[in-house]
Amino acid sequence: MLSYDLDEKNKYYSLYEHIRDDILSGKLKSGFRLPSKRAMAENASVSVITVQNAYDQLLAEGYIYSKERSGYFVEEVNADFYGKRELPEIVREKKAEYKIDFVKGNTLTELFPFSVWSRLMRSVLSDCGEHLLQRVPCDGDAELKRAVASYLYRARAIDVDPRYIVIGAGAEYLYGIIVQLLGRDKLYAVENPGYGKIRSTYILNGAEVVGVGVTDAGINCGEVEKSGATVVHFSPSHQFPTGAVAPVSERLRLIKWARENDGYIVEDDYDSEFRLVGKPLQCAYNLCPDRVIYMNTFSKSLAPSMRMGYMVLPHGLYERYLKLFESSACAVPLFEQKTLAKMLDGGFFERHISRLKNRYKAVRQAVYEKVKLLPYPTEVLDTGSGLHLLIRFPTAKNDEEVKERAKKIGINLKCVSDYLLSPAPVLDKCAIINYSGVTEKQISSIEIN
Amino acid sequence: MLSYDLDEKNKYYSLYEHIRDDILSGKLKSGFRLPSKRAMAENASVSVITVQNAYDQLLAEGYIYSKERSGYFVEEVNADFYGKRELPEIVREKKAEYKIDFVKGNTLTELFPFSVWSRLMRSVLSDCGEHLLQRVPCDGDAELKRAVASYLYRARAIDVDPRYIVIGAGAEYLYGIIVQLLGRDKLYAVENPGYGKIRSTYILNGAEVVGVGVTDAGINCGEVEKSGATVVHFSPSHQFPTGAVAPVSERLRLIKWARENDGYIVEDDYDSEFRLVGKPLQCAYNLCPDRVIYMNTFSKSLAPSMRMGYMVLPHGLYERYLKLFESSACAVPLFEQKTLAKMLDGGFFERHISRLKNRYKAVRQAVYEKVKLLPYPTEVLDTGSGLHLLIRFPTAKNDEEVKERAKKIGINLKCVSDYLLSPAPVLDKCAIINYSGVTEKQISSIEIN
Repeated sequence: MLSYDLDEKNKYYSLYEHIRDDILSGKLKSGFRLPSKRAMAENASVSVITVQNAYDQLLAEGYIYSKERSGYFVEEVNADFYGKRELPEIVREKKAEYKIDFVKGNTLTELFPFSVWSRLMRSVLSDCGEHLLQRVPCDGDAELKRAVASYLYRARAIDVDPRYIVIGAGAEYLYGIIVQLLGRDKLYAVENPGYGKIRSTYILNGAEVVGVGVTDAGINCGEVEKSGATVVHFSPSHQFPTGAVAPVSERLRLIKWARENDGYIVEDDYDSEFRLVGKPLQCAYNLCPDRVIYMNTFSKSLAPSMRMGYMVLPHGLYERYLKLFESSACAVPLFEQKTLAKMLDGGFFERHISRLKNRYKAVRQAVYEKVKLLPYPTEVLDTGSGLHLLIRFPTAKNDEEVKERAKKIGINLKCVSDYLLSPAPVLDKCAIINYSGVTEKQISSIEIN
Repeated sequence: MLSYDLDEKNKYYSLYEHIRDDILSGKLKSGFRLPSKRAMAENASVSVITVQNAYDQLLAEGYIYSKERSGYFVEEVNADFYGKRELPEIVREKKAEYKIDFVKGNTLTELFPFSVWSRLMRSVLSDCGEHLLQRVPCDGDAELKRAVASYLYRARAIDVDPRYIVIGAGAEYLYGIIVQLLGRDKLYAVENPGYGKIRSTYILNGAEVVGVGVTDAGINCGEVEKSGATVVHFSPSHQFPTGAVAPVSERLRLIKWARENDGYIVEDDYDSEFRLVGKPLQCAYNLCPDRVIYMNTFSKSLAPSMRMGYMVLPHGLYERYLKLFESSACAVPLFEQKTLAKMLDGGFFERHISRLKNRYKAVRQAVYEKVKLLPYPTEVLDTGSGLHLLIRFPTAKNDEEVKERAKKIGINLKCVSDYLLSPAPVLDKCAIINYSGVTEKQISSIEIN
């Protein structure tokens, strides 16, 4: 007779578990007739109802079957592998700690207008109420799309029909959508050197990628033309890491190439808000809205935890987008979308950017002053766009020496060559000073021996 | 001499725009020398500084170049395609309106505990403060992962190490991650009939997909074995649309197949919370956590606007996941993650589910009563799992007639055959009554002539 010690708190489940495990482990063989409910109840000192519940569950899951007037029998189950598993340890790499980090691209969150943000959130909660539970169309909330269009007009002089905007859960998410839209039968050109993340995200999404060299006029158009690519991902207003700005002639050459080859250009305008000298540069999208996908994100300008980005699609692509995704819901919660719309419409976002810019101007100034004190010859390469500049050390032995020197005084930095995706001629002995997550005080505290 | 009417409000930008457009349209040819700043200022009745600003912007963007002591010249730009574009209309399909919709799968939002949710949101805002701005690890906030693990233990008796949980922006997002994890060189088997969305999302992500038949014991294991697939996506606890529940013998057979073929099983437990009769069924993950990816979403149980889902990965896959995505941030905002964690830990989620279940039991009951009144012979096929059942009309001519009859009384429904991905033998004349977005009152109001 089967005999089990049952958990007093949940007898039915405990009985079910015991019998189930005995079947899985092979102790109860296929065809074995279980004790009648009454007998089992007596033996286990539980009620017949409890046994009935346990048997019902085993029946529903297919561990046993019943035959009218003869009782319950064990099903044929084959689980020779069944057993407890030992979970191995997960090793997560520990990162070294630095006093100053010029590698991480996180924006300073201390200037984020948290009280404004939380006030807007509260007002969205009370204004929108249960409407916040509704499904959001694939391309985002119409109110946010309109607010983004209007912001783009104010800040970037882009005249965009809000309908063509697609809101997505951050830049990487949108890269994935682009591959799904344009297809995997195309070759995608990315900047080399460039963000490894862009390349790896395209590759993870199944696209074939080729790296194309960068000159001081941005991505090398001649190389693009010869590459066989039909999609180009570039950042004409501030290439990372070289800082190159593409002049209009190069942008137009690339557009011409795209028009003639049924190609598309992804304009990644990732830090255009932060042109610290002069006005923002006109974007490539404006020159040819039929061939350029304009893309930007709020993760950098608002906060790293807010995965929100957007792209503006050419008309034909937008139609294809709708066809593919109309039955899907937007991946960004409506709540965040409504709050951001209020932030943009109320002018809070631009005020935040302007505060950030002032702060970064001071940081940049501090970098310049510190550089003057360096005991080695230096060249500063800076176009005034975005949140990084380059310092070249012509007398250093090599890139390793540049990084070693920095490491000795607690500074984490990378060189331009660290961002090569494949071998290519590139500025050597050139440190990238990405100051987006660094304070003036930190810069001043650097001790130069 | 160049002469422009400038916008009084923003003279510098207006001047810049005029010159830029003249260069792009070819009115100002390459090599043309611009008037000196002083001459331009006089001619346009603006200050020299204004002209300087406009010229600086043109310079920065590469429209002009300067030669020392000789002035500013137009660059060579090739923009023969440049011009204003007409935006075509975007046609979005208008959906027909029905009195009752048994097709849409949206959960009733009226029972959503909105006041609890907004209270929790407010408390997250004040408790977490600026911590909410921090970057979230790729696999989600540790607090939410722990809360989900603990919920899974309480509700589904799944003993899962919280570390192996990955939080993502909804089910479709996670399907994409699965393809990136497992690769595109594999064949993915999906249920046929089944959700078209699952197949199309895999295909959009570049995977090759094969449809595998469904019996009343769920996905046909024999067909899976012969298909050449090494990944199977199935819903053993409540197949859509057939409603089939896979008995443990079939689950084990599939697991055995996965173990022997280095395969993986995606267990889509999409509506397991809503087993309205008896207790939830044990999931396949429990039987073999090394080969099964368990997946579920909160979009159905909370609200359609909340794109939040999760999966539990086998150890080996979790390590590969970290390798691929450790440098990415989670696509779900931290704010929603913290709020959901509080909702789970406080027992609010389970209370909500239990309220929903009571409501759906009543709706289901109303369906049964209405069916009794139908003037045609019917068979109800219902395993008591999830939020849909099937009604078969054996005397109807065909599926079209079933849908036509429903349409006449304002009801939108589909038949099982509408979910065929490729031709296969399937129950005919079988209407799917998906009552997840329907009220008792709506059911009672159906007029049967």
